[in-house]
Amino acid sequence: MGERIHATYWLETGDDPARAAEVIAGEQSSGTFVALPGETPELKARAGARVERLELLETVAQPSLPVAKASARYTRCVLALSWPIENLGPSLPNLLATVAGNLFELRQVSGLRITGLRLPPSFAAAYPGPAFGIAGTRRLAGVEHGPLIGTIIKPSVGLSVAETSGQVQQLVDGGIDFIKDDELQADGPACPFDQRVRAVMRVVRDAAERTGRKAMVAFNLTGELDQMKRRHDLVLAEGGTCVMASLNSIGLVGLTELRRHSQLPIHAHRNGWGYLTRCPALGWDYAPWQQIQRLAGADHLHVNGLANKFSESDESVIAAARAVLAPLWDHAPMHAMPVFSSGQTGRQARPTFDALGTADLIHAAGGGIFGHPGGVAAGVTAMREAWNAAMAGEAIDEAARTRPALQAALGFW
Amino acid sequence: MGERIHATYWLETGDDPARAAEVIAGEQSSGTFVALPGETPELKARAGARVERLELLETVAQPSLPVAKASARYTRCVLALSWPIENLGPSLPNLLATVAGNLFELRQVSGLRITGLRLPPSFAAAYPGPAFGIAGTRRLAGVEHGPLIGTIIKPSVGLSVAETSGQVQQLVDGGIDFIKDDELQADGPACPFDQRVRAVMRVVRDAAERTGRKAMVAFNLTGELDQMKRRHDLVLAEGGTCVMASLNSIGLVGLTELRRHSQLPIHAHRNGWGYLTRCPALGWDYAPWQQIQRLAGADHLHVNGLANKFSESDESVIAAARAVLAPLWDHAPMHAMPVFSSGQTGRQARPTFDALGTADLIHAAGGGIFGHPGGVAAGVTAMREAWNAAMAGEAIDEAARTRPALQAALGFW
Repeated sequence: MGERIHATYWLETGDDPARAAEVIAGEQSSGTFVALPGETPELKARAGARVERLELLETVAQPSLPVAKASARYTRCVLALSWPIENLGPSLPNLLATVAGNLFELRQVSGLRITGLRLPPSFAAAYPGPAFGIAGTRRLAGVEHGPLIGTIIKPSVGLSVAETSGQVQQLVDGGIDFIKDDELQADGPACPFDQRVRAVMRVVRDAAERTGRKAMVAFNLTGELDQMKRRHDLVLAEGGTCVMASLNSIGLVGLTELRRHSQLPIHAHRNGWGYLTRCPALGWDYAPWQQIQRLAGADHLHVNGLANKFSESDESVIAAARAVLAPLWDHAPMHAMPVFSSGQTGRQARPTFDALGTADLIHAAGGGIFGHPGGVAAGVTAMREAWNAAMAGEAIDEAARTRPALQAALGFW
Repeated sequence: MGERIHATYWLETGDDPARAAEVIAGEQSSGTFVALPGETPELKARAGARVERLELLETVAQPSLPVAKASARYTRCVLALSWPIENLGPSLPNLLATVAGNLFELRQVSGLRITGLRLPPSFAAAYPGPAFGIAGTRRLAGVEHGPLIGTIIKPSVGLSVAETSGQVQQLVDGGIDFIKDDELQADGPACPFDQRVRAVMRVVRDAAERTGRKAMVAFNLTGELDQMKRRHDLVLAEGGTCVMASLNSIGLVGLTELRRHSQLPIHAHRNGWGYLTRCPALGWDYAPWQQIQRLAGADHLHVNGLANKFSESDESVIAAARAVLAPLWDHAPMHAMPVFSSGQTGRQARPTFDALGTADLIHAAGGGIFGHPGGVAAGVTAMREAWNAAMAGEAIDEAARTRPALQAALGFW
């Protein structure tokens, strides 16, 4: 038996579900709309996608997506398909065209969402996965236990180089573990990448000499390939320990090439993820998407945060984080680090830890740190104390009694 | 006045529309969820996105997308935003994070779709656009007037190298202008890319020696960057005149790098487009999306076809084709060639030509050619005759009276 690629979908169809499943399997392998002389039974047995499972869920009266021709009712189901690896070989770009190509546009489909992906071991041999992952990130950041307490440079865009490094000065003086550029911060003439990196790293290196621990700064190098390589080399030369890229901006080839070149962890930003996921009847669940990005080399993956300021539910956030923390294969786990952000404070420490059972994560707070009446250092301390309490199973109000920074934080969190 | 980037959106919000517009503008530039000490009026004036237009369309009782908190009603509007180029510089990857980044996830948004994009001339200076476009494609294919009559190798995947070149033999003997791989055909062990190219090009070159005109074959080289470059070089060495790539598989950096390397037209496949567009309240219109791909270097862009077998309406197909044919700038039109496919026959020639007023396109038919009772040559001839009639303003039934191949085709089209 050869290797097979497995994908699961949430499907809604106005057609007979078994027929719709066969149409999808056919369209994504040897078939087309009409019977073809060349599609012999032998060819179909060799190259055809196989319907592995079709589980009916419910029927509804209205289609979730606009359809070319109305039906009396629409059936929702779980559909599992598989393909022989021989159709494409262990190639992520070709995998995308196979499991997430034309099928979303099919006339038989009034809703289709890819929910799961199981890849054969040949993909683990063909792709490197994260170069640093959780262990490498902890080593570079000098954080053995607990989460990396992080923050984002704000305003997102508009600060000068001096204003940016001034903000970083405050943060490293306050003992922060991790700082990231906003994804809108690029290489504009008002805050050029090279000058920003030099000014920020001067501050970070000076602080590291004093404290013995170097804050990790994720510089946004998103751009064309030669720009990204050159920017990476500058960050490395300046003693930096992380680079950031917007995955939906650079695409899969961009990430794969950056991974090949990079000697630093890749902080993977998912901005644009909303257009891939926010319609429940279309697009992508995070589990299959992050799997592809991890294989290609993402070390840190954004998962939003509990009680976030966006529209995502807590349930979805936790499912995303669990997916990022799950091994891809037993022999090749390719662990990446989930990044929690968006309206975060120490109040999210306990529910986040309880849901995941681990603190192998980056927890980024903006106002939750800068808003502390005692200043940035007190804000960072309060975040850390909230996490220590969470990991010890201690209630946050209880823990705050003997911890003044945390106590002062609770008032505004 | 400096250059500005302009984007338009269809927006649905449960909030006050003017406030929602400001939140989106803020989130995508200098602002964040809360007021920040560093976001001074000067910084905001310099770096803030500007709401250029907000036109109310209608209100509805239910949100199009799931929302975190329900509202009594939801307002739909046209929103136009602009950004100073200084925020990011003329960079397509950074542009994506700015005009199509986090905004889709905002809590104020119950529907958001990017519908238009107007870029300042510095983008035209920074990016090359298509290397061949319409004129270069016509020259290489030896087709001066009318559309390139094309087809797709089917079954999509599963044919051996010999079976593939056998099918190509039939097609070039029949006088076809253009042949493409299916997007599922890659470099699997059952039909390796190199062997396929060598076998197919032998057939194509032999036919060209006899007829003086070389059919254009778009070989699907989608893969990692080094693979794509190597495959391109083989196609070029074998006398091939086109390569094909799946844009949503390789991403923007993949396309930009392929354009830098390529000496052949890039046939850009849009598979996966469904998950970007099929929910009317989310994602992308084709106009802004194809604009980015053309800037990066796509020569041919898929637009589906009239009366297609997918779920897209004719109106949407024509809007997409018009977008591809419209100049990007007067001084830098960067014309690309639209590709019509999916259930196409000569019956779509007239309405396609009438809607566009041009035959600067590729018209790909599968069953519409192979199904002809007189064989492939008669099928190709019938397609060409249907287009000649369309361009002459002649009714197809009228034209068929004196054209036997077309007459015979009308029965099964």
